Amino acid sequence: MARYERILLTGAAGRLGTELRKGLAPLAGKIRLGARNAFDDLASNEEQAVFDLADMEATIEATRDCDAIVHFGGASLESPWQTILDANIRGSYHVYEGARKHGARRVVYASSVHAIGYHEIEAHIGVDAPVRPDSLYGVSKNFVESLSRLYWDKFGIESVCLRIFSSFPEPADRRMLWSYLSFADCIRLVEASLTAPRVGHTISFGLSDNKVKTVDNGGASHLGYIPRDSSEPFRAAVEARTPLPDPKAAAVKYLGGWFCELGHPDDEKPNP
Amino acid sequence: MARYERILLTGAAGRLGTELRKGLAPLAGKIRLGARNAFDDLASNEEQAVFDLADMEATIEATRDCDAIVHFGGASLESPWQTILDANIRGSYHVYEGARKHGARRVVYASSVHAIGYHEIEAHIGVDAPVRPDSLYGVSKNFVESLSRLYWDKFGIESVCLRIFSSFPEPADRRMLWSYLSFADCIRLVEASLTAPRVGHTISFGLSDNKVKTVDNGGASHLGYIPRDSSEPFRAAVEARTPLPDPKAAAVKYLGGWFCELGHPDDEKPNP
Amino acid sequence: MARYERILLTGAAGRLGTELRKGLAPLAGKIRLGARNAFDDLASNEEQAVFDLADMEATIEATRDCDAIVHFGGASLESPWQTILDANIRGSYHVYEGARKHGARRVVYASSVHAIGYHEIEAHIGVDAPVRPDSLYGVSKNFVESLSRLYWDKFGIESVCLRIFSSFPEPADRRMLWSYLSFADCIRLVEASLTAPRVGHTISFGLSDNKVKTVDNGGASHLGYIPRDSSEPFRAAVEARTPLPDPKAAAVKYLGGWFCELGHPDDEKPNP
Amino acid sequence: MARYERILLTGAAGRLGTELRKGLAPLAGKIRLGARNAFDDLASNEEQAVFDLADMEATIEATRDCDAIVHFGGASLESPWQTILDANIRGSYHVYEGARKHGARRVVYASSVHAIGYHEIEAHIGVDAPVRPDSLYGVSKNFVESLSRLYWDKFGIESVCLRIFSSFPEPADRRMLWSYLSFADCIRLVEASLTAPRVGHTISFGLSDNKVKTVDNGGASHLGYIPRDSSEPFRAAVEARTPLPDPKAAAVKYLGGWFCELGHPDDEKPNP
Amino acid sequence: MARYERILLTGAAGRLGTELRKGLAPLAGKIRLGARNAFDDLASNEEQAVFDLADMEATIEATRDCDAIVHFGGASLESPWQTILDANIRGSYHVYEGARKHGARRVVYASSVHAIGYHEIEAHIGVDAPVRPDSLYGVSKNFVESLSRLYWDKFGIESVCLRIFSSFPEPADRRMLWSYLSFADCIRLVEASLTAPRVGHTISFGLSDNKVKTVDNGGASHLGYIPRDSSEPFRAAVEARTPLPDPKAAAVKYLGGWFCELGHPDDEKPNP
Amino acid sequence: MARYERILLTGAAGRLGTELRKGLAPLAGKIRLGARNAFDDLASNEEQAVFDLADMEATIEATRDCDAIVHFGGASLESPWQTILDANIRGSYHVYEGARKHGARRVVYASSVHAIGYHEIEAHIGVDAPVRPDSLYGVSKNFVESLSRLYWDKFGIESVCLRIFSSFPEPADRRMLWSYLSFADCIRLVEASLTAPRVGHTISFGLSDNKVKTVDNGGASHLGYIPRDSSEPFRAAVEARTPLPDPKAAAVKYLGGWFCELGHPDDEKPNP
Repeated sequence: MARYERILLTGAAGRLGTELRKGLAPLAGKIRLGARNAFDDLASNEEQAVFDLADMEATIEATRDCDAIVHFGGASLESPWQTILDANIRGSYHVYEGARKHGARRVVYASSVHAIGYHEIEAHIGVDAPVRPDSLYGVSKNFVESLSRLYWDKFGIESVCLRIFSSFPEPADRRMLWSYLSFADCIRLVEASLTAPRVGHTISFGLSDNKVKTVDNGGASHLGYIPRDSSEPFRAAVEARTPLPDPKAAAVKYLGGWFCELGHPDDEKPNP
Repeated sequence: MARYERILLTGAAGRLGTELRKGLAPLAGKIRLGARNAFDDLASNEEQAVFDLADMEATIEATRDCDAIVHFGGASLESPWQTILDANIRGSYHVYEGARKHGARRVVYASSVHAIGYHEIEAHIGVDAPVRPDSLYGVSKNFVESLSRLYWDKFGIESVCLRIFSSFPEPADRRMLWSYLSFADCIRLVEASLTAPRVGHTISFGLSDNKVKTVDNGGASHLGYIPRDSSEPFRAAVEARTPLPDPKAAAVKYLGGWFCELGHPDDEKPNP
Repeated sequence: MARYERILLTGAAGRLGTELRKGLAPLAGKIRLGARNAFDDLASNEEQAVFDLADMEATIEATRDCDAIVHFGGASLESPWQTILDANIRGSYHVYEGARKHGARRVVYASSVHAIGYHEIEAHIGVDAPVRPDSLYGVSKNFVESLSRLYWDKFGIESVCLRIFSSFPEPADRRMLWSYLSFADCIRLVEASLTAPRVGHTISFGLSDNKVKTVDNGGASHLGYIPRDSSEPFRAAVEARTPLPDPKAAAVKYLGGWFCELGHPDDEKPNP
Repeated sequence: MARYERILLTGAAGRLGTELRKGLAPLAGKIRLGARNAFDDLASNEEQAVFDLADMEATIEATRDCDAIVHFGGASLESPWQTILDANIRGSYHVYEGARKHGARRVVYASSVHAIGYHEIEAHIGVDAPVRPDSLYGVSKNFVESLSRLYWDKFGIESVCLRIFSSFPEPADRRMLWSYLSFADCIRLVEASLTAPRVGHTISFGLSDNKVKTVDNGGASHLGYIPRDSSEPFRAAVEARTPLPDPKAAAVKYLGGWFCELGHPDDEKPNP
Repeated sequence: MARYERILLTGAAGRLGTELRKGLAPLAGKIRLGARNAFDDLASNEEQAVFDLADMEATIEATRDCDAIVHFGGASLESPWQTILDANIRGSYHVYEGARKHGARRVVYASSVHAIGYHEIEAHIGVDAPVRPDSLYGVSKNFVESLSRLYWDKFGIESVCLRIFSSFPEPADRRMLWSYLSFADCIRLVEASLTAPRVGHTISFGLSDNKVKTVDNGGASHLGYIPRDSSEPFRAAVEARTPLPDPKAAAVKYLGGWFCELGHPDDEKPNP
Repeated sequence: MARYERILLTGAAGRLGTELRKGLAPLAGKIRLGARNAFDDLASNEEQAVFDLADMEATIEATRDCDAIVHFGGASLESPWQTILDANIRGSYHVYEGARKHGARRVVYASSVHAIGYHEIEAHIGVDAPVRPDSLYGVSKNFVESLSRLYWDKFGIESVCLRIFSSFPEPADRRMLWSYLSFADCIRLVEASLTAPRVGHTISFGLSDNKVKTVDNGGASHLGYIPRDSSEPFRAAVEARTPLPDPKAAAVKYLGGWFCELGHPDDEKPNP
């Protein structure tokens, strides 16, 4: 039995969106794929909504008849302010307004480790630690975490904000040995977020069961997320091809890794 | 080798008492079954004590020669004040007086989730959280938790207060998917409480290893209780036959579930 | 302008009740003095209710038409179980039932340091620390703290539980140099409890502004209680007539003082 | 001796800006008054910058040669999204970009109680509590708190975010009896924020020394702010003209007061 | 009436010892002045003990017949390892052995801010924070804090470890505006440590009532220490003659100030 | 691929050193065995350094060319002060000076449960709890924990301090049922400490995955240590041959076990 009638998946063409498109299938009668370009390979349980998150009207319209939204769209890396503003800040506001106007019950949002990237790894922060963004990208994640809190407290829309660490096919460097979230675990985490009996407003870290643990996700254990993967099978190869890190380097010291060493994105604007 | 010479089990004819009667056998030379009516199926390692907890003298007498008491007797649901007073408040005082007068070393007490039923599930409270009873029944559990603390600090009698969530043959609704304590795990928990090297005064939650976790039992990990069961095998069936819950309903929001929605038990007293 | 129409004061003939009788006058149009014996000196703003707290019907009746209750009645020292049960446990239940049935908005309850008497003074506990009663008297205080929490969460009746330390005309020993609550400060504390805009369910310590501070009352600072007295004027005299204490003695180590060294009250019952 | 050469004061024509214009005078050689309209009463230590915060270039230009910024501009109440976006989100980004490009050392920002308005008053939160905005206005305050954290951690610009409660000539209702910040104390708070030896990134509540205290500002005590005013002189008058509040009402229960009862500002848009 | 019969004051010829020599007079019948050289100005209530702390036998002998010890001797600045070892580590062990062998009840020890010098000022640590010494000197203070804890838990000798910040005639730089401890307040603090009814093992910060507060001394409030002085009268002069500090400098960022910027003392050993 | 070029292992002839000699082999090109006597069975990947820890010059020399140090040397039990001073305090200072002078990156140090031995088992302390040594031996462990903190904060040398509980071939008594650390897990713990990407200054408890858990090691989970052994296989035998413990005995109540019941080691000095 499907848990939801129709789930809108934003960012459906993205790296994680592509994975979720498959993973969400059992959870809803219909998956609506949100993206800026049309898909030409829709399955029978899929439909699409082509729109830009910066377009308020179109975004709100895309949420019609959806009882859940998995919001993974927007810029997924540090970007110039105007991009962050349009895609992540304004875009997410449009998504939440859609949820409010069209009665979605629950939103699962792709927040990021970069929302708390300037905390030190030995601090073992929990999900309630004060925000410490490491980039404009991280600031935009804090914005949505705050906005979604309002939409729960005032408008009764549940949200799970997933602070995803490093979700890639496999760990690419030594930091990912602890920050790795396998695609399969990412799907498990979204599924848990959609099916937990009550989430209210929940912030959860998104990590596989790696040996080295740098945060405490106890505050989200009501989601029922149990990771099954680990970076361990990749360890030997990663360590063989990468040098010992400098423990005083910002990229090693802080949760956010190399984002902490980036300059301001508006200082080297790409040509239009 | 038996750990105790004689354990008194109160409430031996009740739902959990019936299970414990079997489970406690390896832990003592003799199990004394306490109940209001006689048993006609005593095993060779069993003896009985027929008494009403409201009767001070009889209750104290029933504790004679017992070096441990597993106190699961009394009202097990919200009940009129007079019942709560006699069976749970006065009755438990009698049990502790028996322990004090006859030298029992340790008491394992069936407290309840309803002792802290008005905490929200996202709060992930630990065993030290302030009490928030959801019923007169819950208030009586707080009373015994307080009383047993006194009997440890002043009289040296160890106690473990087990805040049992939902111990039934199987999960009956969506809340029980996280509040389930299997009978086998309940026995494991009582066994751990009886055999841990030192418990002093310990409060522990009583839950199986369900995926969704709503409390933090770290403060009781010196008991050595390791659950082996889970509600997971029952999930599909429960979800198939029950609707999605309303996240704002008291029965969903709070640990205590539907107890939080009960009125006052004295407003509709049963006929005598 | 009076804040309440009619306040019931239980224990009106007691040590603190006598002080409160005067102190509450500005806060209500009428003060109803609750006691076991009649007063013969009623002021024009006073009326009386003669009843025993153990009598449910009479106690409930005494709360009629009161929009606030200052509940200082019952046993004020360690006492035999039957006394504690009747006067403090059953009696307080009757008071809360009266509040519920007759619509009182707020109850101010005389809890006690003995509700948490077995905490060490260097622990600097806050109002949320787990209970550690030092006597049956303390257990009864925990009972009412739990009961009043239920009556707020479920029935919407606000309560302030005042854990009064040592409220006497002046400090009698070295412990009272830190545990002293002057009568005037006691009145200030009850007044603050009655006039604070919202108290929900609040537990507050009751102490004057003594130099030596052994607890942290920050969790009750929404009451707006500002003590103005101190034990300092009495220090020299107390120190002159009392020896240096033994830091390892229970009466010195724990908040509850000599209550921690009392035996069980039922072991030496007074003659009837 | 002036501590700063030139302070930019945004919102200089606003309610608090008008007060600060006077209060900041001793702290800098020159005060630059930022507003949308020109002033015609500049003092000799004053200069002006006329600009709209939504104009990035103009805002950045206004920060030139300022070694400190007191950023009190933008919408000061719940407002339609477009206003919040332009004046508070984009506008504040422009201010921080100005600080970064023109080398300001420190920014003092007018955040608000509405950044954490959905916390209950009995929770006594500290400055590190998770955000709980009560309005889009509050969300924009969280945005700047996050942005300024980034500008400290990455770009070394110090910030103090002042969560001002109710800064008005005098308390207007019962809630303001605890939420009152006198104009004189507001100036003291900004002065402390500008002169403390090191602030890094500091969040501080903004309150006078009212008797009823609902938050714990200990985490900001390195600012050296000592309030000297209180709502006490206004209490009698306020209580005389306002009824007893309902303790269960959102406006009474939560720090944010009546903001918690507002609907969504875009539902009743003012005519253009 | 004297509280102690005889107090040994080590370091009696030092900067603080000279002050304490006067301040302790009312607290004991006799003050024994411990120093490496003889005094020629003994008052009638004074006697002396000339010894080197590195001499175990002599140090133990100096504690004979003392019921309290105020241990302010040893190196008071960062020093070569051999000095730290002899004067602070071995010397303090000798003092505690003296206390144990000759039955002193209580020791007041001059620990230092440098025991926790690497904590950031915005962290507002309490007395229970993990140690973070900023020098070998600070390590030796941690050693004595640990040693004295053992002597309380195992041998029943009470200790107060005073983490003195900057106790000088007046604040010499901007850091001292918050780290200042006046001589008079230093005496008050030692007096409180000697007269509090029970101290067990207490760690307390040593600070006057300066406006800027960087630590939380709540955990030591059972000492009853109330500072009466402040750096405020010195502020204008200090600010006039010292530049604005760099908020990123170690000497500004950390509690320990310039000790955090010292190199290793053995790298530039003084000639023998 | 080896992670380190050369590891110095002090205490290489001791109980744990003998185990580590084998366990460290895969982690470095060369293991230098430090001991007071020569080995006659050096493997090809081994070399030796014969020295006494009390000898500063020799100890520093022994660290030459080592990029990591596993410091397990010194007294491993309560010992007379002079032994503790020479072997554990002075000796460890020499090791850290060697690390500083010869550029070792990381030190793994054998601290001990006796550094926090006077905490109660029900307290479930974390690695940040205040120290409570139960012996001079424990005080020396606190000394090195403090010293190594300084060498990280000021000199950039990483350290892991392992508070080893009971590392023996098998559990010898009931306490070891929870304090057991198998040799294999001990090696796993040292290996994790050497290979974790960044440790800064980390304190970790050293325990196998025993059922009864008395501490919370979450603060060290960035080490990536996953124990695989447990005391469970030994339980039945241990319980069969040892009586039920007295819950009020110091050896049962506190983490440190029978060390808490030892007298002062200098009171019964062994003959020279």
